[in-house]
Order: sequence, then C-alpha cells, then structure tokens
Amino acid sequence: MSKLPDIDKDFAKWYQEVIYQAELADQAPVRGCIVIRPYGCAVWEEIKTYLDGRIKKNGAQNAIFPLLIPESFLKREAEHVEGFAPEVAVVTYAGGKKLEEPLVIRPTSETIVHHMFARWIKSWRDLPLKINQWANVVRWELRPRAFLRTTEFFWQEGHTAHETKEEAHSQVLTMLDEYAKLAEDMLAIPVIKGPKTEAEKFPGGETTYCFEAIMYDGKALQMGTSHLLAQGFAKSFEIMFQNREGKNAYPYLTSWGVTTRLVGAIIATHGDNKGLIIPPNIAPIQVVIVPIYKKGSSSEEINKKAQELKSSLKKIRVEVDSDESKSPGAKFYKWELKGVPIRIEVGPRDIENNQAVVVDRIENKKEFVPFDKLNKFIADKLEELHKSLFDRALKRQKERWHQGEKLSDFGPDMDKKSYCYQTGWCGCPECEVKLQKYKGSVRCILKENKHKECFGCSKESKSDVFVAKAY
Amino acid sequence: MSKLPDIDKDFAKWYQEVIYQAELADQAPVRGCIVIRPYGCAVWEEIKTYLDGRIKKNGAQNAIFPLLIPESFLKREAEHVEGFAPEVAVVTYAGGKKLEEPLVIRPTSETIVHHMFARWIKSWRDLPLKINQWANVVRWELRPRAFLRTTEFFWQEGHTAHETKEEAHSQVLTMLDEYAKLAEDMLAIPVIKGPKTEAEKFPGGETTYCFEAIMYDGKALQMGTSHLLAQGFAKSFEIMFQNREGKNAYPYLTSWGVTTRLVGAIIATHGDNKGLIIPPNIAPIQVVIVPIYKKGSSSEEINKKAQELKSSLKKIRVEVDSDESKSPGAKFYKWELKGVPIRIEVGPRDIENNQAVVVDRIENKKEFVPFDKLNKFIADKLEELHKSLFDRALKRQKERWHQGEKLSDFGPDMDKKSYCYQTGWCGCPECEVKLQKYKGSVRCILKENKHKECFGCSKESKSDVFVAKAY
Repeated sequence: MSKLPDIDKDFAKWYQEVIYQAELADQAPVRGCIVIRPYGCAVWEEIKTYLDGRIKKNGAQNAIFPLLIPESFLKREAEHVEGFAPEVAVVTYAGGKKLEEPLVIRPTSETIVHHMFARWIKSWRDLPLKINQWANVVRWELRPRAFLRTTEFFWQEGHTAHETKEEAHSQVLTMLDEYAKLAEDMLAIPVIKGPKTEAEKFPGGETTYCFEAIMYDGKALQMGTSHLLAQGFAKSFEIMFQNREGKNAYPYLTSWGVTTRLVGAIIATHGDNKGLIIPPNIAPIQVVIVPIYKKGSSSEEINKKAQELKSSLKKIRVEVDSDESKSPGAKFYKWELKGVPIRIEVGPRDIENNQAVVVDRIENKKEFVPFDKLNKFIADKLEELHKSLFDRALKRQKERWHQGEKLSDFGPDMDKKSYCYQTGWCGCPECEVKLQKYKGSVRCILKENKHKECFGCSKESKSDVFVAKAY
Repeated sequence: MSKLPDIDKDFAKWYQEVIYQAELADQAPVRGCIVIRPYGCAVWEEIKTYLDGRIKKNGAQNAIFPLLIPESFLKREAEHVEGFAPEVAVVTYAGGKKLEEPLVIRPTSETIVHHMFARWIKSWRDLPLKINQWANVVRWELRPRAFLRTTEFFWQEGHTAHETKEEAHSQVLTMLDEYAKLAEDMLAIPVIKGPKTEAEKFPGGETTYCFEAIMYDGKALQMGTSHLLAQGFAKSFEIMFQNREGKNAYPYLTSWGVTTRLVGAIIATHGDNKGLIIPPNIAPIQVVIVPIYKKGSSSEEINKKAQELKSSLKKIRVEVDSDESKSPGAKFYKWELKGVPIRIEVGPRDIENNQAVVVDRIENKKEFVPFDKLNKFIADKLEELHKSLFDRALKRQKERWHQGEKLSDFGPDMDKKSYCYQTGWCGCPECEVKLQKYKGSVRCILKENKHKECFGCSKESKSDVFVAKAY
C-alpha cells in the first residue's frame, strides 16, 4: 500500500486514494460505477438502519416499485422529461427481441409511483399516503467520482400525497429537518438548509429544499433534497380524489431523498492525512481492540482478555484484531486508515496493571483506563469524539464562509480558494448564470437579507443566497 | 372488494386475487413486473432481517456490485451466456448516445463478482472470501406470476471463494441447510433438499443443490439454490492465488441465493378461502387488537385498554385497529384476509371481566384469556400456530407424495392431479425429457434408492428422484 497523497496539497487525489486503500469501494468495470466493498457497505447500512427507523416513525411505509419505466411515462410531465432525458439509460432489447416501447432505468421514480398513486387514491380517507423506497437508480454520469457522483447510486426516495398544500409543505420541511438531524447527529456534519433557485429545483416540482455542507476542500456538497411537487405531477398522472366536500380534487405531492453520496460527505468532511475518520454514531466498528503480544508471554491469555474486554463493552460495536502475523504498528496504520474512532491496546503489562490503553483517532491521545471503568469511559469518549468532529467541521465551515458584495470582487476567491459566500441576489436568472464564470452556483436561498444589492447587478437584493463552487 | 375465488376450485385465480386484495402487491405498468406494496414489503423485510443475520453469522459480508454488466462479461463463460442470454434486458443507449458496448442488466452477478474477485484474491491468506449482496435482478419473463416468477425480482446472492473443493462444497451445503432452516423455522414450510440434474443445474456451475416445497395445488416450487461452481468461473475470470505451497492455483467458487419468490411460497402454502395466513415468525403483524365499541359506552376507554394490551405484549408485533368508522365484522374480514395469525377482541364487557377474546387465524378458535395472562398466552399461541402451519403443510406434502414405477403409469396423475412422485432414474437425459410429456421434471435427486428400475427405460436406477409439475 502506498502512502496517501497529502490532503491539503491534492484533495481530489487524496479522496480517491483513501477510498481504495481503506477498502470502502473499488473501481467497477462499468463506466461511472463503483463496487461498494464490505466496509463501505457497512457504513451505508448503519445510515440506512437509522434513517429507515426515522422514516417509519414519520408514518411512511416501504414499498418496491419496478426498476424499468416505460419511456412514455417520463414524457407525461414536460419539465421532468427535459430534466432527466439526457441522463437516462435505455433498454431497447429484452428477451432476445427489440422492445416495442423502450424502457428507461429509473433515474428517479416519481412517474411510476404517481401512476400507482392514481390507482390507490380515491378518497380523502386514503390520504395522507406516505411511501418510501430503498432503491438503486441510474443517471448517466460524465464526471464520475466515487460515492459523490456515480452512474448508479443507491438511495431512499420518499413519495407522499396530501389533501392540502400546507400539509404537503409541512411534510417537505419535516423531512428536510430529519435529514439535517441525520447529518448533524449521526454524521457529525453541520449543514445549511434552504430552498433552491428555479434553475436548480427538481424538474417538474414547485419548490426544492436542500441541505448543503462544506467539504474539507471548501467546495459545497448538496447532501439531499426535499421537494414540494404540488399538483403538477398529480395532474399529469390523473391522481384524483373525492375531498371532504365530495368534490374531485388533485392531491399535493412531495418527494424527498438522500443517497450513498452521504458516505462521500463523511469521507470529504472528516478525513485527514492518516485516512478516514468515521463518525462514531454510524461507524460499523466503533472500537478496535489490538492485543499486544510480547515475546515470552502467552498470546492466548492476551487474546482471552481482548475478547473479555469486547464483551464488557455493552452496546458498542467492537472488533478484536487478533491476527498474530501482523505487527501492532501495521494494525494501528490499518485501523487509522479505516477511521475507527477508538483503538484499545492491551498487552501483558496492561493486564498486570488491570488497565487498557485507549487511543482516539482524532487527537491520537493516549489514556490509561482501568478495566472496570472501560465501558463508561468508551461510551463517553464516543460521544465526545462525535462532538469534536462536529465542532471541527463547524469551525471549518465558518472559516470558509465569507460575506461578499459584488461578484466581480469575490468571484476570483470563490474560484481559486473555494471560498463560500453569503451575498445578495435580485432573484433574476440572468445574474445567477454570471456565477458560472467563477465556477460557482447558488447553493440555496438564505433566510437572512443582510446584503442590500444583488451580487450581479445594481438591483435591490430580494434575499441573501449562499454561493460556492460545488461538487 | 369481491369474494375470493374458491382455493380448491381455481387455485391460480385465488392466488392472484388474494395478492391484490390483501394488498401484498399490485400490477405494474411494465410487462412481467409487480409493485410490492407495504404489506408485502414488510413480509420480505422480516425474511431479509432474519436471513441477513444468519448470512453474517456465517462469515459473509454485504457488498454492492453494479446493476449493469458489459455484455462481453457474460460471454466469458460459455455455458453461462447460453443459459442467460435469452433472458437478459439490454441497455443500448445511455446519456443520449448509442453505447459502444451494450450493457446487460444483471440476471445474476457471478461475472462481475468474479471479475472483482480476480482483483482482490492474491494469496491463500485472502481466502475464504465470502460476499453477499441484496439486489434486484432482471430476467425477461414470458409467463409472469406475482412473486413466483417476475421479470424483476429481489434476492440475496452469496458468492464465496475457497482454497479447496471440500471447503467450497461444505459452504454450499451449509447455506442449503441455512435456507432449509429459514423455510422450516420461519416460513413453516417443509422442504425437500437435493442436487439438481445436469439439465437443471446453474449454467456454468458444477453442481446445483436446491430445496423444493410442494404448494397447496400440488405443484413443486424451487425455493432457492446453492451452487458449487468449482473452478470454471475462476478460470474464465482468471482468479488466481498463491497457495500455501507458493504455487498459483484457482480457487473453488460457490454462489447461493433466495428471492422474493419466498413470499409467493408463503401465500401458496398456507392460504385458505379466507385469504392469506402469514407464518407467525415472519408476520409483520403477529397480533391485531380490535376494540369492540358498544353504544352507550365510551370508545376512549376501550381504545386506552387496547393500547395498554399492546404495550403489555412484549417482543410481539402488534397493531391496534381503532378505526371507528368500520364495523368489527369488516375489520375481522380484513385482518383474516391479510393473514394476521392472532386477533384479540376487547369490548366493555371484556374490560369488566378483566379478560380478552383471542381468536387464531387457522382454526378460528375463540378463547377467553385474563389480561394478566395474555403475554405468555400469546407468545405460546404464536409458537403453537407456527407448528400447526408446519404440520399441516407437512401432512399435505405427504398426501401428495407417491411412489411411482413407470412414467407411463404415473405420468397422467402427475399431470392431471399434480401428484408428486418418488421414482427411479437411470441418470440419462433421454429419460429425463420424457417427463415433459406430462408437464413434469426432475425437481431433485434423492438420497434413497428404493426403486430398482428407471421410470423411463428398463435400465437400472442410479438413484431415486423427485419428479413433479413445477412452477
């Protein structure tokens, strides 16, 4: 294994290398795709388990819709097909024959879900209808990057239908808050929430809310979205219900999703020159115990103690690395690369002293902890490490965050230094496109309105926006 | 909702109707596909959760491989491509352009997994390598039937590599036993295990083991398979490792899988004229509590009691149906249709008497149980119902099972009455194809050798076989 590239000198290369070396994923023999290896898959499974519970708590139920969608379905919503047609993969042959109508591999499932909603929703009594799906989707990707941007990716997509716009809007915001909670409480990533501009919203929807984070290199990453689709799709797919007044009405629809990109966000937020740092709350291995074998003392006794310690750590995900063919140094290197939050070392002298050595992955601080205090100590330490990771990411976010008045002034720094800016905007698409000159875009509209004038013209600002280079 | 067709008069129609009426699944607007609705999805999730735990316990780790496979990969193994080419769906356009090489949607993942194995396996120290994937696959289906046979289906596919053939073979049999345990302990379905014939084995493998069950209508259902692939794929994909003697060697490979067909097996094994019966151990709802509202007494008090009873039922999956707009009769009908194993009724008089009415879904037997004894009673009853379902299915299996000597004698009954036969076989494909005249096939080779002569010729039987009509 070669040394990782320096994270501060070549972040893009560091990002790619750490993924391969830590065995999160590997290149696939299919353009734009990756193979998610067991360690990467385990991180995703931790995220899934947590989020699936929250989604169900919110009243949505899981269902499974087909992968293949008739091409004509995509065309029923004009904006939708315009947005997705350039990205889809199309099946034209199947079962040895040319198909009469080509099928697209879902780039997202609104069309087929809404087709089914039209069968299932008849009366206001059928509402709200809340469905979620864990699925793979395909969007042809010209500039792939592992986890952040892949041709096939994995996600959950929630789809709901409501009697009123208020209720639908509230659902959209509830899920946005759930996602922000996932990011902050589980992934230790502080986020910025807000609506997208017209140009950046979901094709066919009314308003798209997103949550964005600032990565290690200063670029913004859209971590997920929650869409108020309103009645557009309901009309295109003829979803109609009898309302409480006995009249026919269209329901208000929403959709919302997060993807395997979240794994990329973890890597690109928390990593350092030693490798990954996986946030404790979703780390598949929270603690690794490394037995330290010494010549002249029995490895059996040390392995037994290591297993004992493992069992003593209740409700904590622990692995014992008792591979006797590898040196402790090689193991430390491996588990640091993989970003396991805490390492426990235990050798003959530790056993004599009834204590273990605890080393954290962030500060590499060594602490001696008596065996009988280990469980509480580790539980507290995991919490503390979560907080440290979050605070460090928040500090970095604040350092990257600048106030900008005129694009011509702040544009060069946005481009060259990947600074993020809060600035004013008149609301016109004409000014929005000016950001492209500096490779920037409006990430989201902010609640504040500090800046009087638009960044791109002399008109009054309607609201502040967050602009940055983005993944 | 219309009445279900009579299960004994038209099983095929009953099967289809009960799936739609119980809301397990719905027809999709894509040929051969279904939409798995929340209730069906929840059954599959229970199966997944159990089996995922067992697979991990067995040492395999989950990973995610791409959906799309280069067409050339399929061709690398001659038998494999011959077996699957007629069934694949092919992507020829993507990202607005014709692809240089078409991609097939995986019908199974051996080819891409083995391509990756060649990258990952270098030394005997990398073995055994045990990988599992939960995924969707597509095989173009001309005679689709919900759950049992659909163009897209959902499964787990395990892929392992071993140093020796013995170890690989043992892995194959271990998983076969795990699957049989899943069928019998969780799904309450007795199974028959054994190897497939050459004609029926996995294309490209050496030996395929299967486990089969006999459905309500007497037809056999292959519930899953476990393949000893041996070294064929390893050679085609150039998977090589340095063995303990320092020499290059090919590993021995296995693969094994079960699919959403298991949900079909549950429906087609346990159902009756009232609807589904979901085996207790994987029922998403094991107990439904129906509050019985009476005029003149407060529904609030009854609902409160129902919720109290729900909380008192520890480790049991309970739902309270407190929809006051529906009659108890309508609710009984609904939950019987959905096959919930136990119904608890609680009304004002029951509250007075400190007891609940417990009704089981199999016998419809009413029992009065004091509130303070309910938890233990229900836990025992669930176990008892599992056993009843299993015994009933086993009894049916035995009734269907006949000894047959000559195909010309037993063939007509196999065809018309869907009887299953144990018979002798010389081992020749020429005799095997004779079964087609009566729509039968060899389901698996049995360990016994009761029958002296082959069913199809006058040669000596090499071993007994299980022959039947199959799904």
